[in-house]
Amino acid sequence: MNESIFILKGNLIYSKSAKELEVCENSYLVCEDGVVRGIYKTLPFEYGGYPVEDYGDRLIIPGLVDLHVHAPQYSFRGLGMDMELLEWLETNTFPEESKFCDMEYARKAYGIFVENLKKSATTRACIFATIHRQATLLLMDMLEEAGLDTMVGKVNMDRNSPDYLREASAEESAAETVEWIKDVLHKKYKHTKPILTPRFTPSCTDELMEKLKMIQMRYSLPLQSHLSENPGEISWVKELCPWSEFYGDAYDKFGLFGADCPTVMAHCVYSDDREIARMKENGVFVAHCPESNMNIASGVAPVRKFLDEGVHVGMGSDVAGGSTESIFTAMAHAIQASKLRWRLQDESLKPLTVEEAFFMATKGGGEFFGKVGSFEPGYELDAVVLDDTRLKHPQDLDVKKRLERMIYFSDDREICAKYVAGVQIL
Amino acid sequence: MNESIFILKGNLIYSKSAKELEVCENSYLVCEDGVVRGIYKTLPFEYGGYPVEDYGDRLIIPGLVDLHVHAPQYSFRGLGMDMELLEWLETNTFPEESKFCDMEYARKAYGIFVENLKKSATTRACIFATIHRQATLLLMDMLEEAGLDTMVGKVNMDRNSPDYLREASAEESAAETVEWIKDVLHKKYKHTKPILTPRFTPSCTDELMEKLKMIQMRYSLPLQSHLSENPGEISWVKELCPWSEFYGDAYDKFGLFGADCPTVMAHCVYSDDREIARMKENGVFVAHCPESNMNIASGVAPVRKFLDEGVHVGMGSDVAGGSTESIFTAMAHAIQASKLRWRLQDESLKPLTVEEAFFMATKGGGEFFGKVGSFEPGYELDAVVLDDTRLKHPQDLDVKKRLERMIYFSDDREICAKYVAGVQIL
Repeated sequence: MNESIFILKGNLIYSKSAKELEVCENSYLVCEDGVVRGIYKTLPFEYGGYPVEDYGDRLIIPGLVDLHVHAPQYSFRGLGMDMELLEWLETNTFPEESKFCDMEYARKAYGIFVENLKKSATTRACIFATIHRQATLLLMDMLEEAGLDTMVGKVNMDRNSPDYLREASAEESAAETVEWIKDVLHKKYKHTKPILTPRFTPSCTDELMEKLKMIQMRYSLPLQSHLSENPGEISWVKELCPWSEFYGDAYDKFGLFGADCPTVMAHCVYSDDREIARMKENGVFVAHCPESNMNIASGVAPVRKFLDEGVHVGMGSDVAGGSTESIFTAMAHAIQASKLRWRLQDESLKPLTVEEAFFMATKGGGEFFGKVGSFEPGYELDAVVLDDTRLKHPQDLDVKKRLERMIYFSDDREICAKYVAGVQIL
Repeated sequence: MNESIFILKGNLIYSKSAKELEVCENSYLVCEDGVVRGIYKTLPFEYGGYPVEDYGDRLIIPGLVDLHVHAPQYSFRGLGMDMELLEWLETNTFPEESKFCDMEYARKAYGIFVENLKKSATTRACIFATIHRQATLLLMDMLEEAGLDTMVGKVNMDRNSPDYLREASAEESAAETVEWIKDVLHKKYKHTKPILTPRFTPSCTDELMEKLKMIQMRYSLPLQSHLSENPGEISWVKELCPWSEFYGDAYDKFGLFGADCPTVMAHCVYSDDREIARMKENGVFVAHCPESNMNIASGVAPVRKFLDEGVHVGMGSDVAGGSTESIFTAMAHAIQASKLRWRLQDESLKPLTVEEAFFMATKGGGEFFGKVGSFEPGYELDAVVLDDTRLKHPQDLDVKKRLERMIYFSDDREICAKYVAGVQIL
């Protein structure tokens, strides 16, 4: 008997591609060493003696992936949504993030965030912390303890923010980052990784960007940041980096745009053809954050174009631009926003389908973490078990339709079990 | 002692106007004969002996008003959202509505709808049933029993729908409507009223419209229908009624556009200045249904213009164009959609504020029911008590901010008590 083998049974749903949703009703999923071995309608004889967790008529889907979320902003989600990006940062975001120099406050605030993320359908996330090294480590301790698989970044900011939330110099910011990375390596986390996190070009001097590149090469770290979210921001970047061809190029000139290490950029609402071509060339991932893009009136990203061009794209909650950590809700918003974009802005880009939204939320974003986000053989087993009996209906519904309902109106009450890389955490 | 007097205590919030949100922390609301008598920071001596329901630090708001919801569509909310209006009606809506000739199915389906509506923050609603007289009466029985205050319509349809969901003639449709009204009057409901419900112009012949006008005059009934939702629908109406000046005029020519009786029209996404002027002149209410308008890719109604012009406007869930009965969610969608409209379509119409969305969901829509939707003296006491302790936060939040969070991410777990016209139903 191989002790690392176990079997899940239920209605399995996963994406093979953005167009192909695979539904395996009442089937067996065999997991070995945390990895999917295969899905079977009838359990093969060789697996006869292994433990089967029978989830009956429930739905089993890959864990959802949140490619962009700000942990310290969770406290003010749903608040102050009457501003655009730059004013919103000054008024809501920076004052709240500055509180995370206080470890007691950080413990309380991050505790709430991690507790709710654990209860959600999210298994993987790329997370912004703040500039504070100690509080970032605390957040990582909590995420590790919760069993989630995440990449977390201490944020870098050495210009254009108030004194109370700005690192004194590029040197200090880089030094703090190295200290933080060393601390992280010392912790020997199993499923919590550091990710370089320059907040966005307006927050980081050229000197800091150069230093971050050196740090990246030394430690082989992935990177996350923001890109082309808002017209005011984009003009500002053009002023700050007059030598850049386009916003993304302002990262690329420092080698911080996916050429060497995995990179995820949030938003890309206004990415033009040149920027899209560069993202494709460099393998940059887009974190599509539709609710945030609505709430702070940024616009709607051309996701159809990203998909057609073969640019990697996943979903982001972008709390607290977004009001919820639910990636199901993010999927609904992605579809809704794409319809308004089609109607109001550009009828050449067709609205997103349920299949495409589900793909982005699972396999599309999951690829940033490796073989994650699908139930195909060889993928790490992230799985969420959904019990939809609370949401009554008078008619028969097939499994695909039951999944659609989850996207539009499920909440954490529907989540009855959750596995991350083969380990049950809920 | 006046037996009809009782007192609620808590953090009271209500709209005085679209711009003015009134917050009375830790205050007393005195209700007499189901009507608000006044709000007091200190309870006046004369009310000393009356029962006080002390809700502590909870929020107490006026019950929410849903000006547009299709009860028979509740079963397929969140499903098949990949079509525009006319195709969506043929494919999803008409087949499901046809099932309501079967009373057993109707009992099951309407039971789920009424149960969930009762658990929601909605106290008043304008509801479409189907063409089926008996099932409509059953729905009204259930709503009456639940204690909600509603207007419910047997739908009229005598053209342009499949045989299985079309009344044989204008005569038959009118005769069934009169039978239904007589049955309703016989029932002597206390808080469930009939409302005339021609589905929309494409579904009703001119002859039927004339007959409905006669029925309206005979029984003094309000009316609900659909208006200017989708470009394809609007062109169709122009073909069907070449004599109409604009879509709303196709109702007005029959006297069915608010001139004599209260009238609510759902959507008004494409209402032009002439239509808006006529709505204002006739006192027509707009049911703004932002989620539906996103889901079936209709567009975004110019709500800012309605408010500025002084047209009555309230919120509608429009299930199953909308996926949820939650009017809190509808408020969030209204704000979000208005931001995309501002960004993508027309920067001259500023996005909606929280105050405006809350006004529309309470006093704005409530006015269709009389003095409803506010806690000002003389208003019927519809109230919802919200316990937000589940939604933890590390920082202090004032009452206004706690209300904003309810709009963006509360669900039925936050609703801990509900009163309709002074009667506690939850």
